[in-house]
Amino acid sequence: MDRDRLTAFTDGVLAVIITIMVLEMRPPHGTGLKDLVALWPVFLSYVLSFIYIGIYWNNHHHFFQLVKTVDGAILWANLHLLFWLSVVPFATAWMGENHFAAVPTALYGASLLMAAIAWYVMQLVIIHRQGDASPLRRALGADIKGKISPVIYLIGIALAFFSTIVSDLLYLGVALMWLVPDRRVEAAILASEKAARK
Amino acid sequence: MDRDRLTAFTDGVLAVIITIMVLEMRPPHGTGLKDLVALWPVFLSYVLSFIYIGIYWNNHHHFFQLVKTVDGAILWANLHLLFWLSVVPFATAWMGENHFAAVPTALYGASLLMAAIAWYVMQLVIIHRQGDASPLRRALGADIKGKISPVIYLIGIALAFFSTIVSDLLYLGVALMWLVPDRRVEAAILASEKAARK
Amino acid sequence: MDRDRLTAFTDGVLAVIITIMVLEMRPPHGTGLKDLVALWPVFLSYVLSFIYIGIYWNNHHHFFQLVKTVDGAILWANLHLLFWLSVVPFATAWMGENHFAAVPTALYGASLLMAAIAWYVMQLVIIHRQGDASPLRRALGADIKGKISPVIYLIGIALAFFSTIVSDLLYLGVALMWLVPDRRVEAAILASEKAARK
Amino acid sequence: MDRDRLTAFTDGVLAVIITIMVLEMRPPHGTGLKDLVALWPVFLSYVLSFIYIGIYWNNHHHFFQLVKTVDGAILWANLHLLFWLSVVPFATAWMGENHFAAVPTALYGASLLMAAIAWYVMQLVIIHRQGDASPLRRALGADIKGKISPVIYLIGIALAFFSTIVSDLLYLGVALMWLVPDRRVEAAILASEKAARK
Repeated sequence: MDRDRLTAFTDGVLAVIITIMVLEMRPPHGTGLKDLVALWPVFLSYVLSFIYIGIYWNNHHHFFQLVKTVDGAILWANLHLLFWLSVVPFATAWMGENHFAAVPTALYGASLLMAAIAWYVMQLVIIHRQGDASPLRRALGADIKGKISPVIYLIGIALAFFSTIVSDLLYLGVALMWLVPDRRVEAAILASEKAARK
Repeated sequence: MDRDRLTAFTDGVLAVIITIMVLEMRPPHGTGLKDLVALWPVFLSYVLSFIYIGIYWNNHHHFFQLVKTVDGAILWANLHLLFWLSVVPFATAWMGENHFAAVPTALYGASLLMAAIAWYVMQLVIIHRQGDASPLRRALGADIKGKISPVIYLIGIALAFFSTIVSDLLYLGVALMWLVPDRRVEAAILASEKAARK
Repeated sequence: MDRDRLTAFTDGVLAVIITIMVLEMRPPHGTGLKDLVALWPVFLSYVLSFIYIGIYWNNHHHFFQLVKTVDGAILWANLHLLFWLSVVPFATAWMGENHFAAVPTALYGASLLMAAIAWYVMQLVIIHRQGDASPLRRALGADIKGKISPVIYLIGIALAFFSTIVSDLLYLGVALMWLVPDRRVEAAILASEKAARK
Repeated sequence: MDRDRLTAFTDGVLAVIITIMVLEMRPPHGTGLKDLVALWPVFLSYVLSFIYIGIYWNNHHHFFQLVKTVDGAILWANLHLLFWLSVVPFATAWMGENHFAAVPTALYGASLLMAAIAWYVMQLVIIHRQGDASPLRRALGADIKGKISPVIYLIGIALAFFSTIVSDLLYLGVALMWLVPDRRVEAAILASEKAARK
């Protein structure tokens, strides 16, 4: 089955998610600088979520260059991921509107956690389907970032009830960790292209 | 005429439908866990509709691999399907916000029923256009799932006035029935690819 | 320059337009059948606009099969068309929410009129750029539908201040006229493909 | 890495941005011509922003014809640009709803300024990655428009506190300056195509 329609649909959903989040940033009623500045928690939440969706798109882009064919299981694993990412705007709005209150901050972490789990499941499904010679498995290696992230989200969720600023810094830290381009996959793509050219 | 622009447009519309549904999940005004938990009917409705749109996208993806050329009739049959799918977010929001009340639950079933009928009409149009050797007709076989689904929706709509939970379980049941990948079509694709390679 | 990115962007915009219109159909506050039925003007407006956007997408799909290369002027003529089509959801909502009141009905006609003019301008720009041998000009012929439509819209706008139902029937009539597939263009595509194959 | 998925995703985001802006144009509550006319600041703001997003899409379309391969840095430079463009609907709505008040008009200019800076950064990243023989650098030449625009935005932001009409005319002036197609890049594309054909 064709991979391109899966990636095109994913791009469409992520493009809508990343853009409708800004609809939650309602223009303030007043017109003073003060009214604008009061929106800072909404804006910061939006920035963080924009970066997260950007990271997922980026990684999706990378991964699926190592996935040439897809089947029903991969389609659904991908839709499962998109589902949890589609919950992120909801969690973002709740957290931003309530100045990083405890439960909204925990929910935000939970939406990231679920997306991370969905990503991991998708990875497993693809590797299982690619079999022993899976180029994705070789590219992932120990996949330390993928294993650490859910743990940090969990800590962030738990700490939200004590100090939401620590939670937010943890969420930000994971984002920064992933912002560094995934050299493992880039190297594997180059290697497989080299092999193909021979 | 070119199939690819039809599938690209369909992907775009489904991507927007699946994503804007979440906009109906307004963040609660309070910030307690209680406020979040109170949203469960909205959330469940969203999950069910997400699965349904996912199924339609999935099946669309499969079907159009057996449809190489499209004409005006197929374009409109497809737009007709997209119309009824675009009504699903409306029905989802009404049902979710009103805790699965009778009429909203019936309307939700009606939107699924209309989409199923539109799908069936599209199938007929494509098979008619492909003629006797239609690979789609051969792939569909008796099309039992396609024929049973509308009947179950009708029962669900009628039962909504007595017990909405039964209706919802019926809608869920149809979704689960379709979640199983359509092996008929997958097999037909493999067969036609094998034939093409010879 | 590449045509494909123009058509892909147009598909994206039209997919969003056709889908966000349904967001204007707010679920009613009550849960009775009566509450649902009260939405009929909103629903009918939505249906009509869905058909119109579908027609534009359909015709766009047809036309650009005869346009192999695009330049800045065509890009902007196309964006100009998309602008007026993006106003349609606004006019649709205003007309639907106000039960086809006079000024909203006239505005709806005006949005259709502007889109028709923008389409006509785009046609001129493309034909001018294709030069004397323009396959599009040959395909269009006398372009009677394209010339009649704006006249009917104008009549509809004027009559809105006397009888909005007549206006709405005129708008519907134009839609039905265009629903008939554009055999001129289809024939021209077939002819040019035949010529190319020789 | 593949350029096409970057441009497709960008098209998706820009298509959503350009279309959701119209959602901010809420239909008026009254049904008179007066109620419609009262929306003129909202409408004008929308027109200006539509043109701006159109210009960015147009220029993006042109530029990436000279960019054959992308890496992580280019992906993120592009996402950074999309972020600031996604803020434009917010600034547009605030400015329009408040009849071009001072701070909203300044914020609108600031959103344009940030997008311009993001564009410039993206340009630098691409040219750096293409190395000495960068076809983009040759195509850009002195890049006078790119260097003047941020300066005019800055002046517009400062003047917003004295006369917002002057600011708005400055923003409009920059838009008109860019509306003229970028002949430098078009010429460079033709030249590189000619070279490739040899």
